[in-house]
Amino acid sequence: MLAETDDRNTVGAGNLNGTLYGVGVGPGDPELMTIRAERLIRNAGVIAYPAPENGESFARSIAATSIQPATVEIPIRIPIQASRFPVQEIYDAASNRVSAHLLGGDDVVVICQGDPFFYGSFMYLFERLKDRFRVRVVPGVTSMTACAAAALHPLCARNESLTVLPATLENGVLEERIVADGAFAIVKVGRHLERIRKLLRSLGRESESLFIAHATLSGQFVSALADAPESAPYFSMILVPGTDPYAAS
Amino acid sequence: MLAETDDRNTVGAGNLNGTLYGVGVGPGDPELMTIRAERLIRNAGVIAYPAPENGESFARSIAATSIQPATVEIPIRIPIQASRFPVQEIYDAASNRVSAHLLGGDDVVVICQGDPFFYGSFMYLFERLKDRFRVRVVPGVTSMTACAAAALHPLCARNESLTVLPATLENGVLEERIVADGAFAIVKVGRHLERIRKLLRSLGRESESLFIAHATLSGQFVSALADAPESAPYFSMILVPGTDPYAAS
Repeated sequence: MLAETDDRNTVGAGNLNGTLYGVGVGPGDPELMTIRAERLIRNAGVIAYPAPENGESFARSIAATSIQPATVEIPIRIPIQASRFPVQEIYDAASNRVSAHLLGGDDVVVICQGDPFFYGSFMYLFERLKDRFRVRVVPGVTSMTACAAAALHPLCARNESLTVLPATLENGVLEERIVADGAFAIVKVGRHLERIRKLLRSLGRESESLFIAHATLSGQFVSALADAPESAPYFSMILVPGTDPYAAS
Repeated sequence: MLAETDDRNTVGAGNLNGTLYGVGVGPGDPELMTIRAERLIRNAGVIAYPAPENGESFARSIAATSIQPATVEIPIRIPIQASRFPVQEIYDAASNRVSAHLLGGDDVVVICQGDPFFYGSFMYLFERLKDRFRVRVVPGVTSMTACAAAALHPLCARNESLTVLPATLENGVLEERIVADGAFAIVKVGRHLERIRKLLRSLGRESESLFIAHATLSGQFVSALADAPESAPYFSMILVPGTDPYAAS
């Protein structure tokens, strides 16, 4: 705690600690990185990113052509089946590695698919380090607007409300949130596809809904929800258009 | 109608019409344009963008350094006080100018602040031209995630729902949508600031809320909602953090 207090006291007081950058790299197509994200990653001395237990990190793959050979890489490997507790231990260890670089005066660029603050895992490092270090967040293109672009359907217009609902929520909560006239984006569909499709059918919203998977990637798939495949990847989305009842106001 | 029918019949049949691009250029900082947006604008033969009746277009100003001298520009000038009807006439005229270029075989790049399908005025051209011409939409960074980044506060996490509410909605609708545990982004605040602030106070959500104006621009302003100024610009936002009751699920 003493080190934390010292660090906190010196923040903004000309200390030589590095800055923690949370950098969104967009939905998957490298050309949908922002100019700033590409520049920060190209010039980074140290980068960190989420990764599976084995194999390639999706976030890193988006930025791969911008990463320099001399850049130090900190993959944060999360087991797919990990319960919540070990995941927190993994982020404790990762934030210790990251903070060692920050205390040494190096900036650390955390590569985040989509946007760091839109359902991003960056928050796990952010929560652990924000009180001790200077943090800057570079927003990115979310998978949500990328899916609307892929489907060629406006996400929300004029005075419509737009509600983003993780498919992991239970039916009772989803039903309570899905009101007649709003637009909805149901994210993290994955194994919940059949349940969500049945729910939207029971609410009379299936026929107008769209299903999008792998937006902006080579395997991009767009269809009416009724024509969606039996099984969906985790990074798939259902868009329920609104009815814009306030269009004239 | 005949021309429309002919065009529709030839879409995808190797016709020589140009493509309509709706290109998001992000919240304001030119470095938050995507690499693709910058490339399309730099190479565009014809661009169009919303603009005030007199003076500079905000969307154009974001992309200004990428626009080439030889590029044909179509400003779509909307009077601030225009009622809905003349605005529709303005978009009719603009879509006629754009379609003339598309029929001549030129691509037309429509520059949109933020994302074209997230409360974007692009939809007015899209609705008029989508059945006659090939359309591609390039998603952009929204002002919403830019405001969360500026405020250094996550927009939504884990299993939280996020609801985007235009401040132009009446209190009854807003109260009905603002549920206890969700996260909220109230957009287009402008002259509605005091009413929204009172409403959030009555709902017990004012103290946790954040006010952000001119995100990513030189005049960027971030404060607790309670400390927000008396008057707010149209492009300001209120973020109401969620309580993430499903964090463990």
